[in-house]
Amino acid sequence: MICVKLVSYTNDGEKVIAIAAKMSRSRKGWDYHEKEMSNDEVEIWIKDAILHGYWSVLEHSVYTFSIEGISRVASHQLVRHRIASYTQMSHRFAKPVDDYYKPIVPPSAKKRDREFIEKAYKEAYDNYFNLLQSGVPEEDARYVLPNGVNTNIVVTMNARELYNFFALRLCSRAQWEIRAIAWMMLEEVKKVHPHLFKYAGPNCIIHENFIRNENESITLEDIFKDYKLEFISQRCIEGVLRDGIKKCVINSRSVLDNIK
Amino acid sequence: MICVKLVSYTNDGEKVIAIAAKMSRSRKGWDYHEKEMSNDEVEIWIKDAILHGYWSVLEHSVYTFSIEGISRVASHQLVRHRIASYTQMSHRFAKPVDDYYKPIVPPSAKKRDREFIEKAYKEAYDNYFNLLQSGVPEEDARYVLPNGVNTNIVVTMNARELYNFFALRLCSRAQWEIRAIAWMMLEEVKKVHPHLFKYAGPNCIIHENFIRNENESITLEDIFKDYKLEFISQRCIEGVLRDGIKKCVINSRSVLDNIK
Amino acid sequence: MICVKLVSYTNDGEKVIAIAAKMSRSRKGWDYHEKEMSNDEVEIWIKDAILHGYWSVLEHSVYTFSIEGISRVASHQLVRHRIASYTQMSHRFAKPVDDYYKPIVPPSAKKRDREFIEKAYKEAYDNYFNLLQSGVPEEDARYVLPNGVNTNIVVTMNARELYNFFALRLCSRAQWEIRAIAWMMLEEVKKVHPHLFKYAGPNCIIHENFIRNENESITLEDIFKDYKLEFISQRCIEGVLRDGIKKCVINSRSVLDNIK
Amino acid sequence: MICVKLVSYTNDGEKVIAIAAKMSRSRKGWDYHEKEMSNDEVEIWIKDAILHGYWSVLEHSVYTFSIEGISRVASHQLVRHRIASYTQMSHRFAKPVDDYYKPIVPPSAKKRDREFIEKAYKEAYDNYFNLLQSGVPEEDARYVLPNGVNTNIVVTMNARELYNFFALRLCSRAQWEIRAIAWMMLEEVKKVHPHLFKYAGPNCIIHENFIRNENESITLEDIFKDYKLEFISQRCIEGVLRDGIKKCVINSRSVLDNIK
Repeated sequence: MICVKLVSYTNDGEKVIAIAAKMSRSRKGWDYHEKEMSNDEVEIWIKDAILHGYWSVLEHSVYTFSIEGISRVASHQLVRHRIASYTQMSHRFAKPVDDYYKPIVPPSAKKRDREFIEKAYKEAYDNYFNLLQSGVPEEDARYVLPNGVNTNIVVTMNARELYNFFALRLCSRAQWEIRAIAWMMLEEVKKVHPHLFKYAGPNCIIHENFIRNENESITLEDIFKDYKLEFISQRCIEGVLRDGIKKCVINSRSVLDNIK
Repeated sequence: MICVKLVSYTNDGEKVIAIAAKMSRSRKGWDYHEKEMSNDEVEIWIKDAILHGYWSVLEHSVYTFSIEGISRVASHQLVRHRIASYTQMSHRFAKPVDDYYKPIVPPSAKKRDREFIEKAYKEAYDNYFNLLQSGVPEEDARYVLPNGVNTNIVVTMNARELYNFFALRLCSRAQWEIRAIAWMMLEEVKKVHPHLFKYAGPNCIIHENFIRNENESITLEDIFKDYKLEFISQRCIEGVLRDGIKKCVINSRSVLDNIK
Repeated sequence: MICVKLVSYTNDGEKVIAIAAKMSRSRKGWDYHEKEMSNDEVEIWIKDAILHGYWSVLEHSVYTFSIEGISRVASHQLVRHRIASYTQMSHRFAKPVDDYYKPIVPPSAKKRDREFIEKAYKEAYDNYFNLLQSGVPEEDARYVLPNGVNTNIVVTMNARELYNFFALRLCSRAQWEIRAIAWMMLEEVKKVHPHLFKYAGPNCIIHENFIRNENESITLEDIFKDYKLEFISQRCIEGVLRDGIKKCVINSRSVLDNIK
Repeated sequence: MICVKLVSYTNDGEKVIAIAAKMSRSRKGWDYHEKEMSNDEVEIWIKDAILHGYWSVLEHSVYTFSIEGISRVASHQLVRHRIASYTQMSHRFAKPVDDYYKPIVPPSAKKRDREFIEKAYKEAYDNYFNLLQSGVPEEDARYVLPNGVNTNIVVTMNARELYNFFALRLCSRAQWEIRAIAWMMLEEVKKVHPHLFKYAGPNCIIHENFIRNENESITLEDIFKDYKLEFISQRCIEGVLRDGIKKCVINSRSVLDNIK
């Protein structure tokens, strides 16, 4: 149902970021670095930027997603990230009727609750439809649509803001739907720019890397693979204590299993 | 129901803006201008900044509103304005039950539709309440709440962003609820900073002043007073033709009469 | 000397913008529009967005420039545009010595002044070099470098911000160097996205189109071709009167002739 | 010479932040909390927001500074902070001549270097003045002014951005002049809002608090008082190892002794 698709991005984004980072330390111009920089060097400049918090260079690589079939509960949270660009399907102009009415049912709901929610959605739809029939304009009729009603939204974010978005929304404290969207977005960008998003993760990982020796930096992948990994952080910023952090991250990602 | 209250603002905001504007042209420091600048001069520097599009100085004066009893339809639109700060009542933590459930009924609805909407709201509430009772967590149960459900939000915007917000949301094309909020916000800021917000208005007025001789600049007040006022603009940016613009502005503001 | 190069951009930016614009009015998803949208439709959606001030969709197409050999006078102005990303050559880490010291001489300077400025630049260089020799750190020695000293900067802006940047910096009131940079940037983006930047121009043109009948909208190209074009605006926002606007625009662009 | 003055701010900023934070968890409106909230509660909500990274509420309190007598080296760095508002003295309109020419001499320079720098500044001035005399316009003549030339700038930042600004610019790796400005700004805001800025500091402190048990959070004040304080962080984000961090912070602040 929820569908996250990367529809456009800076093709050479990893190299663009690496060259920009290098140019801040160099007197030479773009063309020189563009020719001379090896793939290994690209990786090194990116890693160095992230582990030293030199985030601004990550802004030069940009990603556009089409996020479809999410609820307005989720879209309302999504657009709170202000360093991003949004174009959302408007329920003033596009009526969610017939096959286009596909409100989102929380996957955690048990069978009986699920049926109850679906019935509630059906009632809301009938009310909405009746209002339209009796001549109430779309923009007013939609007040009775449920918060769970589906919407589509086009989102553009740069790599720096994505790191910030992931830090907050991959966290198990994030609401399940936006969390699922975040994990899906991460999968998409990792496919195209694996070096750049290697260190992305919820705040517990980002913060751990801020204070850990550089040659011992950790990644999300380590969490899922290496059960011997020890955090130095006494707690994450949300208050989970050291010993619980790994399990908490693994738990956060399990939302994907529920909705697929 | 909808309540807009200015709860904090830059007390000396008009003078701060005027001094900043003057300092860009002067070698003297803040203290000098602070002592020397008369009220008349404050007005002149502000008017000059606005009529020449020197908007950045308007950012130095900032306003915080508590906007209460609005729907999540309106709050979703509101937070799309990214150059602003928001803190919203969370339905994950604060359940809108009992007296706190006061969903917004569009004022344009006729009596029969109104009753129908209220019935729909009641049904949605019962469904929500049932889900809570059967142990569904708040964050999931709220999916069946209606879009019209009430929320509170604290908003901080500077005067430049307010001008932009008003330009878009005082326009008759804006959805009625956010339009009502915008007209209420304008009333609030005009009370405390009348010189600064004298030229605020929907885009038709802003754009007209961009292209009109300076000594013939117009204000919202002129629209409501002077029926002989002629626009030079052939159309407003939304496509309303010259002869219809004044009526369109007057019509936009009438939303206030309906909800009070 | 001043070199502006478009080094990366959203390849399918025009189509991305058009699809996003359409999706706000449609219930269908990205894939559908991606397949169905013709080139003509792309043009129509873009034109419609710009002439109705629906600017936010323009944010989905993004451009990265390497701007090299500009003065720190110009870079200081450039970075005042806050909705953009910058990575600048740091004089703390990269010493502008030997062949890398190429301070910018204003092209308007007459021969004698030009020689005088070059001499002043030479003196400043010698002072800088002496300080380095006597062990003063780079970050302090550079205080004696001239404002005209050359720097390189990587800049990323989306199409909406470019429209705003052009509106301000293509204007004849903008300082000559940033104005030259703006005209060069416009040439670069027009090569790759001619439909998208067709209506870009200084504020006089942007504002004229805001208030003019849609089928009579004007472009920069019209200004340079059609001497019979009449403005409706009584004045531009900088105060140039109707009859002087066209000449003023033509004059603004002539900075390119001087520096090439 | 360098002068940092807090000229306007949200008077009740600490309470505004605390109320906003509480309203996100409450169904009650502003008036209720405004009456009921005690000073102790204000402190608790602020501390809680900062130690859990709930930064957005800090945006509701805003500060305007007049920063005078700084170099254009420093102002160029300052304006790179994009989430802020600036109005800068323009050397296109305000000539830095006679008593208004007071270029900044790096305090670290030894006596001989200092004299050398002052001579270099004098030469640059003479060149500038000569160009003005021979009719070169201000905007071009200033190309020969030194980077160290003095300027004034009005800056508005909210408390969240100030925390970010301090994190980067109180660090010993920041260039000395902007570092001095940052320490002065901190002094100013601490005078008026001591609870709010209690946890402000360079990144080493911010990050340490992100990963430390809450009841053991540290402040800048602790660094200067308590030499027994132990960091858990293995390194700061700039690469300083655990044992060196405290000394590094103390060293950073010593720039104030040099310039006073």
